[in-house]
Amino acid sequence: MLVVMNRDAVQADVDAVCEAIRALGYEPVPMPGAQRTAVGLVGNDGQVDGSHIAAMAGVAQVLNVSKPYKQVSREWKDEPTVVEIAPGVRIGGDSVAIMAGPCSVESEEQILLAARQVRAAGACALRGGAFKPRSSPYSFQGLGKRGLELLALARAETGLAIVTEAMDDAGAHLVAEYADCIQIGARNMQNYSLLRTVGRIGKPVLLKRGMAATIHDFLLSAEYILAEGNPHVILCERGVRSFDPAVRNLFDLTAIPLVHKMSHLPIVADPSHGTGLRDQVRPMARAALAAGADGLLIEVHPNPDRALSDGAQSMYPQQFADLVAELGPIAAAIGRTLTPAPSVSDVTDRTGHGTGPGTARVAIG
Amino acid sequence: MLVVMNRDAVQADVDAVCEAIRALGYEPVPMPGAQRTAVGLVGNDGQVDGSHIAAMAGVAQVLNVSKPYKQVSREWKDEPTVVEIAPGVRIGGDSVAIMAGPCSVESEEQILLAARQVRAAGACALRGGAFKPRSSPYSFQGLGKRGLELLALARAETGLAIVTEAMDDAGAHLVAEYADCIQIGARNMQNYSLLRTVGRIGKPVLLKRGMAATIHDFLLSAEYILAEGNPHVILCERGVRSFDPAVRNLFDLTAIPLVHKMSHLPIVADPSHGTGLRDQVRPMARAALAAGADGLLIEVHPNPDRALSDGAQSMYPQQFADLVAELGPIAAAIGRTLTPAPSVSDVTDRTGHGTGPGTARVAIG
Amino acid sequence: MLVVMNRDAVQADVDAVCEAIRALGYEPVPMPGAQRTAVGLVGNDGQVDGSHIAAMAGVAQVLNVSKPYKQVSREWKDEPTVVEIAPGVRIGGDSVAIMAGPCSVESEEQILLAARQVRAAGACALRGGAFKPRSSPYSFQGLGKRGLELLALARAETGLAIVTEAMDDAGAHLVAEYADCIQIGARNMQNYSLLRTVGRIGKPVLLKRGMAATIHDFLLSAEYILAEGNPHVILCERGVRSFDPAVRNLFDLTAIPLVHKMSHLPIVADPSHGTGLRDQVRPMARAALAAGADGLLIEVHPNPDRALSDGAQSMYPQQFADLVAELGPIAAAIGRTLTPAPSVSDVTDRTGHGTGPGTARVAIG
Amino acid sequence: MLVVMNRDAVQADVDAVCEAIRALGYEPVPMPGAQRTAVGLVGNDGQVDGSHIAAMAGVAQVLNVSKPYKQVSREWKDEPTVVEIAPGVRIGGDSVAIMAGPCSVESEEQILLAARQVRAAGACALRGGAFKPRSSPYSFQGLGKRGLELLALARAETGLAIVTEAMDDAGAHLVAEYADCIQIGARNMQNYSLLRTVGRIGKPVLLKRGMAATIHDFLLSAEYILAEGNPHVILCERGVRSFDPAVRNLFDLTAIPLVHKMSHLPIVADPSHGTGLRDQVRPMARAALAAGADGLLIEVHPNPDRALSDGAQSMYPQQFADLVAELGPIAAAIGRTLTPAPSVSDVTDRTGHGTGPGTARVAIG
Repeated sequence: MLVVMNRDAVQADVDAVCEAIRALGYEPVPMPGAQRTAVGLVGNDGQVDGSHIAAMAGVAQVLNVSKPYKQVSREWKDEPTVVEIAPGVRIGGDSVAIMAGPCSVESEEQILLAARQVRAAGACALRGGAFKPRSSPYSFQGLGKRGLELLALARAETGLAIVTEAMDDAGAHLVAEYADCIQIGARNMQNYSLLRTVGRIGKPVLLKRGMAATIHDFLLSAEYILAEGNPHVILCERGVRSFDPAVRNLFDLTAIPLVHKMSHLPIVADPSHGTGLRDQVRPMARAALAAGADGLLIEVHPNPDRALSDGAQSMYPQQFADLVAELGPIAAAIGRTLTPAPSVSDVTDRTGHGTGPGTARVAIG
Repeated sequence: MLVVMNRDAVQADVDAVCEAIRALGYEPVPMPGAQRTAVGLVGNDGQVDGSHIAAMAGVAQVLNVSKPYKQVSREWKDEPTVVEIAPGVRIGGDSVAIMAGPCSVESEEQILLAARQVRAAGACALRGGAFKPRSSPYSFQGLGKRGLELLALARAETGLAIVTEAMDDAGAHLVAEYADCIQIGARNMQNYSLLRTVGRIGKPVLLKRGMAATIHDFLLSAEYILAEGNPHVILCERGVRSFDPAVRNLFDLTAIPLVHKMSHLPIVADPSHGTGLRDQVRPMARAALAAGADGLLIEVHPNPDRALSDGAQSMYPQQFADLVAELGPIAAAIGRTLTPAPSVSDVTDRTGHGTGPGTARVAIG
Repeated sequence: MLVVMNRDAVQADVDAVCEAIRALGYEPVPMPGAQRTAVGLVGNDGQVDGSHIAAMAGVAQVLNVSKPYKQVSREWKDEPTVVEIAPGVRIGGDSVAIMAGPCSVESEEQILLAARQVRAAGACALRGGAFKPRSSPYSFQGLGKRGLELLALARAETGLAIVTEAMDDAGAHLVAEYADCIQIGARNMQNYSLLRTVGRIGKPVLLKRGMAATIHDFLLSAEYILAEGNPHVILCERGVRSFDPAVRNLFDLTAIPLVHKMSHLPIVADPSHGTGLRDQVRPMARAALAAGADGLLIEVHPNPDRALSDGAQSMYPQQFADLVAELGPIAAAIGRTLTPAPSVSDVTDRTGHGTGPGTARVAIG
Repeated sequence: MLVVMNRDAVQADVDAVCEAIRALGYEPVPMPGAQRTAVGLVGNDGQVDGSHIAAMAGVAQVLNVSKPYKQVSREWKDEPTVVEIAPGVRIGGDSVAIMAGPCSVESEEQILLAARQVRAAGACALRGGAFKPRSSPYSFQGLGKRGLELLALARAETGLAIVTEAMDDAGAHLVAEYADCIQIGARNMQNYSLLRTVGRIGKPVLLKRGMAATIHDFLLSAEYILAEGNPHVILCERGVRSFDPAVRNLFDLTAIPLVHKMSHLPIVADPSHGTGLRDQVRPMARAALAAGADGLLIEVHPNPDRALSDGAQSMYPQQFADLVAELGPIAAAIGRTLTPAPSVSDVTDRTGHGTGPGTARVAIG
């Protein structure tokens, strides 16, 4: 922490700041300059909450030097974390995982067809919502537990790993029983109670960036999960609020290299929510991969024109297949490969998967 | 809903859109123009989820005409709602409620002293956090249930109504037992499970606007509470994300007249979080009142330099008293009055308050 | 400037940073800490452009301590600047100036009627565009020089001071001949050539904040004008870009106390552009005054339903009169008074006004 | 235009809106619905400025259906425009142009060395500022005309096309004499006088997106240039304002497919300004190409640690060469090729280039 004084700050102001720093248990180091004095703080192990000093007499600004997150940082662990959400389905490192499927699970027929289609095109995981956070209380809210059962059925048939969202504590425990990876949506990124719960459950978590979350906020939310002893966290960029009504969200791909610089955690990208319109999903999925994403989350629906939610941003199955065909060469150009789909025989091994932290098969590379 | 076609859309495109509207159960009304055709939709009672139409061939844009919220709107109920959180402590209508207190409940001594100070200066309600949502898992998280007990103690002594935050379902039930009004923080504005819970509890709710929530999103979140049968909702503007690092948040006072135009619910303002620095609280509290706020939420700490959280934005007790003295004449200039503090004798009546929806004493004006 | 090193930075990295600081002509002060080293820079008079250091090996962050603006800052000049744009029409200090009029000058009849109406209601200056910056090249662009002549006619009749916008160098010289104060619009806030030109002309300048300008950017643009020797600068908050399509702009009233804290220049507010809709102008004009604005810029049109531009945000004359009646008591509540309109007889003295820097009658309070 | 009425609007309100539409010269089409009436407008050729209708009694909302820009739109011209800024240096269509060089021209030695380095690595154009728009009036402002002479010298030696910024009318004419393409910076995107000037000059223009410009605003600014008869416009995404201080700007790559959908003009991307830090330039340059950019603008400096401006975001020459090596395969994966550098012998043909609109060799593909 560095406290910058005003030019006209008097010695008593500087003394008071030094005293306040000592009251926090640290040592102040005044540095008189040509124009103004600054007071450094020595001896801290992590960030100091000295916000009250910002309002003291003669203080111009308080600059935080240390970061308030620890376990998620590159300084804490230098090698990249690889999260294995199901046997062979690794996210992070050299492999890039394509996770695809409909916005919502709507019926057995729909989800099985979607699973077969995305697997055939090259996906290694199936995404689909059983619990849907909708802005309006009157919109379709998902099939709930029945949706989870249908996702498990799709896994049994195709071998695909299952990623699906939980919206509260009860839902998180239920999702953990059925799925391979618990998704926390953008609206709940700072629902700290829920973050602690999934931290304690111990299963892999896919944490989506909030609508107005800085990278700093995003990493702090991940820290809540790691602080409970669960290191299996995958971050996900899905677009932030924009001033431009032409797009649903502003897809912030620079978040990818930034997270890779600041953290060891893998980060995937969701161009479907990131753009909101099918036409933009193809170029932006390519762009996310080229920017270094460790995976892609893409909405594909067997019949987007009849989708119960997010129809406009869901790809047709053939469009998705064409996209995956483009992604291979781009991955190769930057030294990466697409994660292959798991074989169905692996599913047998997954019986009983998700009953507790002990069963999470996650390798930290 | 209005579907605007591209200039080069062919008749088959228009026909397909008409068919899609019919499939949703409505009647399409094509309107050929000089440059392009538009297709209106007739027969809807509320908003239609026609997002998939946006991506159909020949479609330029889909415009929503109806609003997706109902019960919170002025069109649903024209007269302003007045929420009475404790006997005589009314929010909405002509009276303006000043709610003040420290960011966190820290100790018996601190909260009792704060309660006496803010009551003496003119507040009618005491605010203070027992459960604190902190960006970092390593920051002070509040005293929990002990904090609620201390707030109840402060109420018993001063008669002030109590407003405090809940962060999850269990916390909401606990807060409902001890406090007069359950606050939902900005980070949980779209935590729909929690909104449903406080909707079912039935006690008055103070709902803070999310960091990047549009007014539309904000009203939809309130709709979740009303949809569960709880009409006692107070909205709160507390600043949104800004691109300017010079401020903690961008305090959006235009939200006040906008909400008053679109909804019958009362809206208060929190200049402490809205600005983040004590110096700005005074002018911006005045501005919020002049903009038409139905109440103010202000952080005051007996000793801000020793506060465990948000010290920089907490006012000194004397500053707060000076501010309230300025507020009276401004309220008078726009035909309003400051809500007086309840008398201590009223507290007796509140024994057992908060044990269920049946006990909520809330008047809908 | 403070250079914060990574935790794993080696001594050679620190040495290289010290060397780079010396190459800039300053003295480095390394400060080893428990977790990481920081290197301070001593001896600078103003901000140092050390952006290249941010990308050196082992550097985590470069924090700027000094501000890059000088003459606009409170540290440079502590007492508030009062700009007198016409005899008695002072902006800053205790008096609050109401400047009103139509978006565009449309005809002699329209501008004379508007001038009489706003003067009668209590305005001391007339605003109205002769040169209009319109987003579309096909929109009405203003009457140009003829518009300036009509504004001068309105001044001759009513005594009101004239504020009008210039969009380029030629326009600035023309405006300086006819008007009392040259307005620079939000779109040109960083048009540095134009800022230099109005700096050299020497007449009072009303500088509007850009759509996405931080307070820091805003003050730096004002610095361009002062750096050319023209201290007669009035800042104007007029709303910034918002993510919420419900409003035209996000009116950032906290900018007012912030500017007052950081700079000695006066700042006025424009609730008409700041909100974009007539209904919001009244509460937000009151709010701006309560927040400490040194003046208000309000669009009033004799017949808003027939306005050639910005009809939706222009007030009806009677609405404006009602608003001004509310403003007086609010000003009194915070110890200020509304600037009275100049008498017509003063206009005679203004013959020849605006022919060069020498004639600017501006008092620095 | 569609005027949506409130639910409680009375017939007289609807009639008044119809009358206002007739007063604008169009025909109103009232459409009574189950809940509310909407009034369509028929007969317009382009957007109608009916903003005053938004504030009429009973009106809930005015929706614009037509776009206010014309010549830049895909509907106006379907095939993509290819701008040839110098013989063989085409931007748009299948070829992707790499334009590179230092932020500022600093000396003959520096610019010649930079030109040789970027040409050797694969650039086809040299970028470098002679006139620099700097936020602070006290920062290095560029070498001016001397800088242009040095750029011309670099062209003579290397054959590279020259792209450089103009900040005002005089500068635009000067740049047109020396360079192949006039850059308009983000701060001047809505400097309509300057846009008209470069429209009249007729030379290729590279127009950068403003800090808070929507795609709509961006296209309207381009329309100003086309409206003066100059179709040779290249758009450039360079990042927009973000709420996250971790990045200098938020690089909005979705703008690329969006512009391609809405307009026939080519769009290039500037990852150097778009990210602000050298480490992010490499992944984000790849991402921009994968998103469909028609070219890249990249800052490269022979010695970034000694750069007079923007040192932190300038690449080292070897980094740039490594980047270009990665770009080839990505371009191939999406069916595009990198534009080769022009041969020096072509420069002879360019003698006299840039003396007027007549010499612009631009092909509209």
